[in-house]
Amino acid sequence: MSTTPQNRYKADVRETKFLLFEQFPIEPLLGKAPFEAWGRDECSMVLDESYKWCCDVVGPLNAVGDREGCSIVDGRVKTPTGFKDAWASLFQAGWKGLAAAPEYDGQGAPYSLTCAVEEFLCGSNPAFNMYPGLAQGAAEVIAHFGTKKQKDLYVRRMIHGTWGGTMCLTEPHAGSDVGSARTSAKRLGDGKYAISGTKIYISGGDNDFTENVVHLVLARVEGAPPGTKGLSLFIVPRVRVNEEAALGELNDVAVASLEHKMGINGNATCVLNFGEDGNCIGELVGEAENVGIQQMFMMMNTARIGVGIQGVSVAGAAFLAALDYAKDRKQGASMLNWKDATAPRVAIIEHADIRRMLMEMKARSEGPRALVAKLAYHSDNVRALKGKDDQAAAYHQGQVDLLVPLVKAYSTDQAFKVCELAIQTFGGAGFVKDYPVEQYCRDSKIFSIYEGTNHIQAMDLVGRKLPQNGGANLQAFLGDIARFIAENESHEKLGALVKELAVAHEAVAGVAMRLLGWFQSGRMQLVPLAANRVLEMMSELCCTWLLCAGARIAVDALQKLPKGEDTQAERSFYEGKLHVATYAVHNILPHAKLTAEILGREDTSALDIPAQAFASI
Amino acid sequence: MSTTPQNRYKADVRETKFLLFEQFPIEPLLGKAPFEAWGRDECSMVLDESYKWCCDVVGPLNAVGDREGCSIVDGRVKTPTGFKDAWASLFQAGWKGLAAAPEYDGQGAPYSLTCAVEEFLCGSNPAFNMYPGLAQGAAEVIAHFGTKKQKDLYVRRMIHGTWGGTMCLTEPHAGSDVGSARTSAKRLGDGKYAISGTKIYISGGDNDFTENVVHLVLARVEGAPPGTKGLSLFIVPRVRVNEEAALGELNDVAVASLEHKMGINGNATCVLNFGEDGNCIGELVGEAENVGIQQMFMMMNTARIGVGIQGVSVAGAAFLAALDYAKDRKQGASMLNWKDATAPRVAIIEHADIRRMLMEMKARSEGPRALVAKLAYHSDNVRALKGKDDQAAAYHQGQVDLLVPLVKAYSTDQAFKVCELAIQTFGGAGFVKDYPVEQYCRDSKIFSIYEGTNHIQAMDLVGRKLPQNGGANLQAFLGDIARFIAENESHEKLGALVKELAVAHEAVAGVAMRLLGWFQSGRMQLVPLAANRVLEMMSELCCTWLLCAGARIAVDALQKLPKGEDTQAERSFYEGKLHVATYAVHNILPHAKLTAEILGREDTSALDIPAQAFASI
Repeated sequence: MSTTPQNRYKADVRETKFLLFEQFPIEPLLGKAPFEAWGRDECSMVLDESYKWCCDVVGPLNAVGDREGCSIVDGRVKTPTGFKDAWASLFQAGWKGLAAAPEYDGQGAPYSLTCAVEEFLCGSNPAFNMYPGLAQGAAEVIAHFGTKKQKDLYVRRMIHGTWGGTMCLTEPHAGSDVGSARTSAKRLGDGKYAISGTKIYISGGDNDFTENVVHLVLARVEGAPPGTKGLSLFIVPRVRVNEEAALGELNDVAVASLEHKMGINGNATCVLNFGEDGNCIGELVGEAENVGIQQMFMMMNTARIGVGIQGVSVAGAAFLAALDYAKDRKQGASMLNWKDATAPRVAIIEHADIRRMLMEMKARSEGPRALVAKLAYHSDNVRALKGKDDQAAAYHQGQVDLLVPLVKAYSTDQAFKVCELAIQTFGGAGFVKDYPVEQYCRDSKIFSIYEGTNHIQAMDLVGRKLPQNGGANLQAFLGDIARFIAENESHEKLGALVKELAVAHEAVAGVAMRLLGWFQSGRMQLVPLAANRVLEMMSELCCTWLLCAGARIAVDALQKLPKGEDTQAERSFYEGKLHVATYAVHNILPHAKLTAEILGREDTSALDIPAQAFASI
Repeated sequence: MSTTPQNRYKADVRETKFLLFEQFPIEPLLGKAPFEAWGRDECSMVLDESYKWCCDVVGPLNAVGDREGCSIVDGRVKTPTGFKDAWASLFQAGWKGLAAAPEYDGQGAPYSLTCAVEEFLCGSNPAFNMYPGLAQGAAEVIAHFGTKKQKDLYVRRMIHGTWGGTMCLTEPHAGSDVGSARTSAKRLGDGKYAISGTKIYISGGDNDFTENVVHLVLARVEGAPPGTKGLSLFIVPRVRVNEEAALGELNDVAVASLEHKMGINGNATCVLNFGEDGNCIGELVGEAENVGIQQMFMMMNTARIGVGIQGVSVAGAAFLAALDYAKDRKQGASMLNWKDATAPRVAIIEHADIRRMLMEMKARSEGPRALVAKLAYHSDNVRALKGKDDQAAAYHQGQVDLLVPLVKAYSTDQAFKVCELAIQTFGGAGFVKDYPVEQYCRDSKIFSIYEGTNHIQAMDLVGRKLPQNGGANLQAFLGDIARFIAENESHEKLGALVKELAVAHEAVAGVAMRLLGWFQSGRMQLVPLAANRVLEMMSELCCTWLLCAGARIAVDALQKLPKGEDTQAERSFYEGKLHVATYAVHNILPHAKLTAEILGREDTSALDIPAQAFASI
C-alpha cells in the first residue's frame, strides 16, 4: 500500500493540454461571456495544480481505500483512513467548485476544463471522488429544478462540501427497470411527504466527513400512475434542517448495510431504509409531482458523462502504469539475439508483443479521451452560443446528446479492456496487490453497469439519439467526418489513413439505414440484439477519426518545431500522435466494417434458441 | 459466503457426456489396453460422482477460500477453513488417482475422462484444486524422469495425497525469461546438492494438510552454462526423508511471504527461500545435470493443458451462473410491450441483449471445452496406438502438440471474457460478493499469465508448433477441417454454416504462409507482433469447426429422437448445439478473416514508435 514510484498515480498532462488547446481549442471561447474570468493561463494552471493535488493527496489513498473499505459504526458509515482529511483538502483547494455557477461561489469554468480535472480526480481515486461527485450532481439538480428556498438552502452547502449528496434510484426489484420503483411518498398536507421504502446500491450513501447528506430519492406519490411517469423526486436530508440551515433531529434514514464488492471499496455502497419508523420527511424538488424522472435524467446525463470520464481516467492510469513498468522491467534478450543466452537483458518495452499491448492501450485510452474532450467542447459551445446563434447552438447540443451514450459505454468498455492489457503487460506482477493495475481492473468493472448499463446506453443511442431531430444529429456527425476525409484524403502523410476512415464511415451510415429498416418493418427484436455493436462501431469510427485529426495537428506542429534537444519531448509527443492514429486505423477501425457485415447477416440464433436449450441444468 | 442455490457451483454434465461419448467417442478405446478396466458405464459413473463430490465438498469452499485467504502461522501456511478436510475427502474419493498409472495404485483412466473430471474440480474451486494438481504434476515428472529409488519413495505418496508437491521456476528477475534463473546448486560429493536461492509465485508453496511438500526446483549447478541449457531440476523436500520415507529434520526451505492477489486467494502463492542457512539439500531428478528444462517442460505441458481446463471450467461456471440468474431475475417488460408500464415483468432471459450475452458465453465456453476434449482424444489415441500403428500415433501426437498452446491461451482469454459478460448479465449484482461471478472474474485473470503467458503460448505456436514436422501438424489440422467441409457443405441444414468455415480456413492457411514469408525474409519482428492474433484466429476456426461438428451430430440425433415429453430435455440439448454453432459461425468466426486482413497490412506502427513517444511521463 506504500506509494512507491511504480504505483503512484500518473496522468499525461501534456495530452490533456493538447486536447484543450490544440485539438478542441478552448481559447476562442475564453475571456468573454460566459467564461469572462478564464484565460489560457488560468486553465493551464488549474490543470497543473489539480494534477499535483491528485498525485499528492488522493492518489496515495487509492490503495488504502481499497484495502480498508468502509464499515458501519454506530449506524454511520466509517470511510477509510485519510478520506476525511482529503475531503477537507479538496474543498479548500476548490477543485469541485470549478464548474459551479458564480452565484453559488463557483468559478464557472468551461466544461472542457472541468472534465479534464475530473479525469485526474477520478483516475487518482475513483472511490473517493464519487462522494463529492454525487454531492455535486445532486446539487445541480436542485440548482436547476428547485425552488428559490431550496436553492438557497442546499446548493451552496453541497457544492462546497459542507453537506454531501446522493442519488437514490435503484431498489431490489427495480434496477434497469427504474419505473418499477415502489418507494412511496404520502402527502402530509404541509407540502411535505412521508417517504417509505428501501433503496440499494447507493454510492456514497453515507460518509463521516459531512454534517449532513442530502438524498435525492425517486418515489411514487400515492395514486400516481405506474411506471416512470408516476415517479417524483424528493429531497430527503439525513438530518432535518430548518430554513436557516440549522440542523435538527434525525430524519429516519438508516444505513441498513454495505455491499461487499469487487472494487471501488473506498466508496460506501449502501442499502438505505427510508421511513422504517414512519418518520422520514421529504419535500419535492421544485413543486411538481410526477416529473421526477425528467429531473433525475438531468443528473443522470451529467453522471453518465462522469462515468465515461471514470473509464478514461482509469484506462489512462492503467496504461501509464504499464508503460512505466515496461520501461523499467528487464526480461529476456532482444528478439534479434534470442539464441544467445548471454545477450544482455532488455527492458520489456523492447519486445514486440509488449509494444502491441501498449499501442492498444494508448489507442483505447486516448481515443475515448478525445471523445470526452469533443463532447465537452460541444457543451461549452452550446453555452457560448445560446441566444447568440441558436442554430449553431442546436448543432452543438445535438452532438452532445449523440455522444453521451458513446462516452459512457464505449469509454468504460475500453477501460476494462485496457486494464486487462495492463495486467498482462505486468505479467505475474499485474495479479498482485503490490502494483496498482489489478485494482484498476476491479474498480473499472462497475463503470459498464451503473448509471444505466452499457446496453441501456446503446438503446438510448439507437432508439433515441439516432432518430433525434429527424436524424439531424447523426447526419451532422457523419457530415463532420466526411468533411475531414474530403479535406485530408490527399494529404501527403495522412491521406492513406484518412481513406480508411471512409470505409468505416460508409459502414456506420449503412448500419443506420439498416436500423431504420428494422424499425419500419417491425423487426424490433433485431434492434436490441444489434444495439451494443452499433454503439461500438460508431465509437470506433469516431475515436479513430479523432486520433487522425490529432495526427493532422501533430504533422503541422512537427513541421514548425525546430529540431534540437530542447524540443525533443515535444517532438516525441507529436510523433506519438502519428503512430497511434496509424495503429488505430490499421488495427481497430477495420472492426467497424466487420460489425456492419455481421449485422447484415441478421442472425437471430440468440433469439431463436429456446431458454431451456442454453444448457442442461 | 452461504451456498444459496444461486451461488452453488454448476457444470453441464450432459455436455461433458456429449463430448466424451458422441463427439470424441472414447468407447472404441475402452475395454482393451491401455484402458482395460474402463467401460462407458465406469466413465459415466465417475463423471456423475465426481461432479456430485465437487458440488458438495469443494464448491461450497470456493468463496470461503476467497474471503479468508491464506496466512503464515509459525512459518507454515495456514489454508482456509475446510481445505484440510477437503484434501482428505478428495483422496478418499480417489479423483486424483484417476489418471495415475496402476503401478502407483492409480486407475489408469483415459485422459479424456480425467480432463472432464478436472473441469469439475477446477470449476468448483480453482484455488483448492491447484494444491493437488501441482503435487500430481510434480509426481509425474519424478515418475517419468526419476531413478527407481525416487519413484518408489515419492510418486505414490504424492499421487495419493500423503505428500504435496510444487514446481519452482520463477525468480524475482526471471519470469518469462526462466533461463535467467540464479538459484544455485553446489555439489556436495555424495550425489546431493546444496540449493540456494529465492523462488517467487510458487502456487501451493506450502499447506497445512500434508506432512511433507516435495518441491521441484530449477537451479544452476556451479559451472553450468548460462540460459536454460544450464538448468537442472532438483527434488527438494520440505522435510528430509530417508529411504524408508521416514521424516527427518527440516530442510532449510522457508516460506518468506505470501502474495496478496487479485484472486485465487485460497491458494498460497509463496515466496520460498531455499538455503538461507546454507542447509538446503536437494537431489537431481534422475541422474543428469543440465536437463532440467526438458524435465520441467514435461510438467509444463500437462500444466498448460491444466490451465486451459481452468479457463474452460471457470468460463462454464460463470456462464451457468449467469444463465441461472437470467432465468430467475425479473426486470422490465417484454420488448413487445415496452410502452405499457403495467405490462408484466419478465425474466431477463427474455431480453435480446441478455440472450446475445448468453450466446456469447455459451459459444466461448463450449468451443474451448470441445478444444480440450479434442486434445484429450488425440492424447488417448496416442497411448492406444503407440507401438501398434506408429504413423497414426504420430498424427495424433502432432495434433496434441499443436493444440496445447491453443488450449492454454485461447481458453483462458475466453474465460476472462465470459466472466466479464457474466458480470454484465447480473448487472449490479454481478459486482457484489453475494454472487459468485465477480470472484470467477478475479480468479480467472491469472490463467492468461501463469504456466507461460499467453504470448509465450502464441510464440510456441508460431515458432515451434506450426513448423514442427515440416508443417505436417498444421497440414493435418487444416486437412481435417477441409474434409469436414467437403463432407458437409451440401448438408441440407448445415451446408450454409459449413461453407463459412471455408472462408476462415483459407484465412488461416494464408496467414500461415505469410508467417513463413516473414521468417524467410528476415522480418522476424513481425512474428511476435502477429503471434497472439494468429493463435486467436486459429482457435476461432478450430472452435467454430468443433461446434459445427457438434451440430452435425445433433442433427442426426434429433432425427432419431421420438417426440414427446420424456425426450424433451434431450431435444433441447441438441437444439442448443445447432443454435450455438449458428451463432458462432455468424458472430465469432468472421473475426478470423478480419484478422488475416489486418495482418496482411503488416502495420509496424507499434514497432516504429519511439519508446518516449508512448506518453509524456
